[in-house]
Amino acid sequence: MEKKKFVEAITSRDEDFARWYTDVCIKAELMDYSDAKGFIIYRPYGYALWENIQKYLDNELKKTNHQNVYMPLVIPESLFKKEAEHVEGFAPETAIVTIGGSEVLQERLIIRPTSEVLFCNHYQKIISSYRDLPKLYNQWCSVVRWEKTTRPFLRGSEFLWQEGHTAHANEKEARKETMDILDAYNTLGRDLLAIPFVMGQKTEKEKFAGAVDTYSIEALMHDGKALQSGTTHYFGTGFAKAFNINFQDKDGEVKYVHQTSWGVSTRLIGAVIMVHGDDSGLVLPPYLAPIQVNIIPVMQHVAGVLDKAHEIKAELEKYNIRVAIDDSDKTPGWKFSESEMKGIPLRLEIGPRDITNNQCVLVKRYNREKTVVNLDELVKIIPTLLKEIHQAMYDIALENVKANTRETNSYDEFKRIINEKQGYIKMMWCGKKECEDKVKEDTQATSRCMPLEKESIGDVCPVCGDKAKHLVYYAKAY
Amino acid sequence: MEKKKFVEAITSRDEDFARWYTDVCIKAELMDYSDAKGFIIYRPYGYALWENIQKYLDNELKKTNHQNVYMPLVIPESLFKKEAEHVEGFAPETAIVTIGGSEVLQERLIIRPTSEVLFCNHYQKIISSYRDLPKLYNQWCSVVRWEKTTRPFLRGSEFLWQEGHTAHANEKEARKETMDILDAYNTLGRDLLAIPFVMGQKTEKEKFAGAVDTYSIEALMHDGKALQSGTTHYFGTGFAKAFNINFQDKDGEVKYVHQTSWGVSTRLIGAVIMVHGDDSGLVLPPYLAPIQVNIIPVMQHVAGVLDKAHEIKAELEKYNIRVAIDDSDKTPGWKFSESEMKGIPLRLEIGPRDITNNQCVLVKRYNREKTVVNLDELVKIIPTLLKEIHQAMYDIALENVKANTRETNSYDEFKRIINEKQGYIKMMWCGKKECEDKVKEDTQATSRCMPLEKESIGDVCPVCGDKAKHLVYYAKAY
Repeated sequence: MEKKKFVEAITSRDEDFARWYTDVCIKAELMDYSDAKGFIIYRPYGYALWENIQKYLDNELKKTNHQNVYMPLVIPESLFKKEAEHVEGFAPETAIVTIGGSEVLQERLIIRPTSEVLFCNHYQKIISSYRDLPKLYNQWCSVVRWEKTTRPFLRGSEFLWQEGHTAHANEKEARKETMDILDAYNTLGRDLLAIPFVMGQKTEKEKFAGAVDTYSIEALMHDGKALQSGTTHYFGTGFAKAFNINFQDKDGEVKYVHQTSWGVSTRLIGAVIMVHGDDSGLVLPPYLAPIQVNIIPVMQHVAGVLDKAHEIKAELEKYNIRVAIDDSDKTPGWKFSESEMKGIPLRLEIGPRDITNNQCVLVKRYNREKTVVNLDELVKIIPTLLKEIHQAMYDIALENVKANTRETNSYDEFKRIINEKQGYIKMMWCGKKECEDKVKEDTQATSRCMPLEKESIGDVCPVCGDKAKHLVYYAKAY
Repeated sequence: MEKKKFVEAITSRDEDFARWYTDVCIKAELMDYSDAKGFIIYRPYGYALWENIQKYLDNELKKTNHQNVYMPLVIPESLFKKEAEHVEGFAPETAIVTIGGSEVLQERLIIRPTSEVLFCNHYQKIISSYRDLPKLYNQWCSVVRWEKTTRPFLRGSEFLWQEGHTAHANEKEARKETMDILDAYNTLGRDLLAIPFVMGQKTEKEKFAGAVDTYSIEALMHDGKALQSGTTHYFGTGFAKAFNINFQDKDGEVKYVHQTSWGVSTRLIGAVIMVHGDDSGLVLPPYLAPIQVNIIPVMQHVAGVLDKAHEIKAELEKYNIRVAIDDSDKTPGWKFSESEMKGIPLRLEIGPRDITNNQCVLVKRYNREKTVVNLDELVKIIPTLLKEIHQAMYDIALENVKANTRETNSYDEFKRIINEKQGYIKMMWCGKKECEDKVKEDTQATSRCMPLEKESIGDVCPVCGDKAKHLVYYAKAY
């Protein structure tokens, strides 16, 4: 009874995907709404996901000599306006502080929507010689972008992210950094989130305000829409010229630095929900999961059951497995549902009879497969299962991308497919903005990226008939 | 020559302590000023100190079942005004967002100066039963308080901190939390920062806006001024009543929760600088230090020297010792000065002759003691030395507190001492605000706290002659 009631409370994924998504966010206790429109509360379980992403990525960045810094929350308006394209891109969505300490400020302060100008201003001061390069700085913080329509984790007036900002002696190094980080993001998807990304370059229309080139990782959600999940930008010397960031090189010449920036955000949590979740709630990939094994004692009032549960927990924790016990006064059925809603990769059931037989039952969240396991073998079997689950979840997601990636050389077919089926459509493109605009106007699909692995499926742009230059992944997107 | 020039660049500590402090902040590359007045840039070396404090404390908090969350950056003005005393305390120093997305906002948004009201508003929604208690939430973030005069790490318009906010079923548990966290802060001082704190209760006049009781840890700086380094607050049911946070208890009755809040900030970095630093710069306690051992190759152009340095680094890192090599083209003397400026606990010198003798020279930063060490014993000796250094630095700081803590039962003597000598003065107090005010007016000294270990040195308040109630630590303070 209880279980049914609990499960019924969430909308079916295929019936109303948007509502299913919000239900999962709330019911799995990932977030809550605040009184400030568009600003959300990251609840402990949701924040723990972000902490695990941070921990993984921060470690990777430190291994590659990146250093963390913290820049101010606010940007004086005059500084913000120093790079023309950049300010044009961000000005309309800024929040502005006009009062401080009960007085109207002489200069308005922009709450950072991104911190390029702060890093540039600092780099101008601290870089003067080739000895000062490269600067490989990163910052973990929140940024504010005023959004009219917001959705938890996907689009909010405030979100958490990391923003890397680097300065290099030449174009080659800066371009390498741009691609290395894109690759690191892709690896994060593969090894932590169990999400296969498509990596590619953004078109001129879709690139970052102020960038020479923008690259992105794109993920395909269960509903067939794409989600831009992270970007890296090569800036050339544009910001360096606007901010006068130059250095004396080994050859004695004074040169401008070449810069990059790159970021991933709490949007990745949205990707995890929409790639892996199902009608019972969240399904978490094991290495991301704050709790990997949820022990649910059966007939916990019987002497010895709870003791055994705690004993197992302590033993597993020695092997760095993240374990919880649900010893609340709810029924086991209710606990099972909650464990599924929270997407905990493995449920461990143990009752008096299991103890007698020195065994327990393990249930995988993603496919509900049950295994009876000898207690003496738990510490060996669980790491293996977690690894298998991760791989299986990745494979399913990859299968979904493959099954929902189509290609065409006919624009009529493109329009037909995009309305019938969701997913990526690969189509050649001439490189003109007009054709990209036309696709968006006709179909609401946007160019997601031009994949890194060069591929050609035709010679002409099906939209205008001109010579094709690039293959583009199109999709409807979040 | 170079060395002299480098060292000369910082002011002597005893000549001008304030300038010495700023010099160290800049020269050790801990921070830089930004274009927004009162907002500083945490440079990599300074931010790494904060990361180590975070890592230590976050681990302690998680061990005691605290959970991290993230609340919005902004508070709608109406919400901010819900608890009267609290708003009165913070309103004058707030920064206010009045424009968002190019439009004037209907309701102004306060940038959080602290997040009590956000947590209360959330707790009201998620707490309804004794089963939901306790809630032990913590948040790592930055807050904004508009300050007229600012100093790096000590007082800024923006600072980084953690703020804990907890809700409990009864007073006893909430009071225990308040004291447990105070104790955790004290332990952080002892075990990580090598700073002996005085723990005590704040007087009515000095307590937090909205608190029933406030406790603090106070540290004594080299110049004899005190620095409040962290606080914990017991709120009783004041906020709970203002925000209607109640729950059904086991006995069926509906009750208000009892709350606490507590925080330490980047101010702790200021404390470390001013407790341990000297005329050559920063002196870092070993467990806090981002780099514990700085290898400086001597005659590094000689074949084999740099290889050996890297070999030693790799070996030490296996034992989780944090090591750097300075293989830049600066002279060894210059490198020594930089290593001292950055306060790195151990300098390791190695040159061709050392390699022949299978040895190196270790120099302790805090007292410049040199030891010649056999290379085969390095991995054993260094952890021991780091431990010894930590203890010695703590002992020196404690000695300084003892030597600069005086007591008196005469207000005339109090006034004389406070002008002649810096440090704490212990004096009895009747409990009346007027006497506290008078002390401040006459001497600029403020009551720091009433120490936890009850102590009495007299029966009357030397200021007014009335019956004494408490012993108070007075000092001039930052």
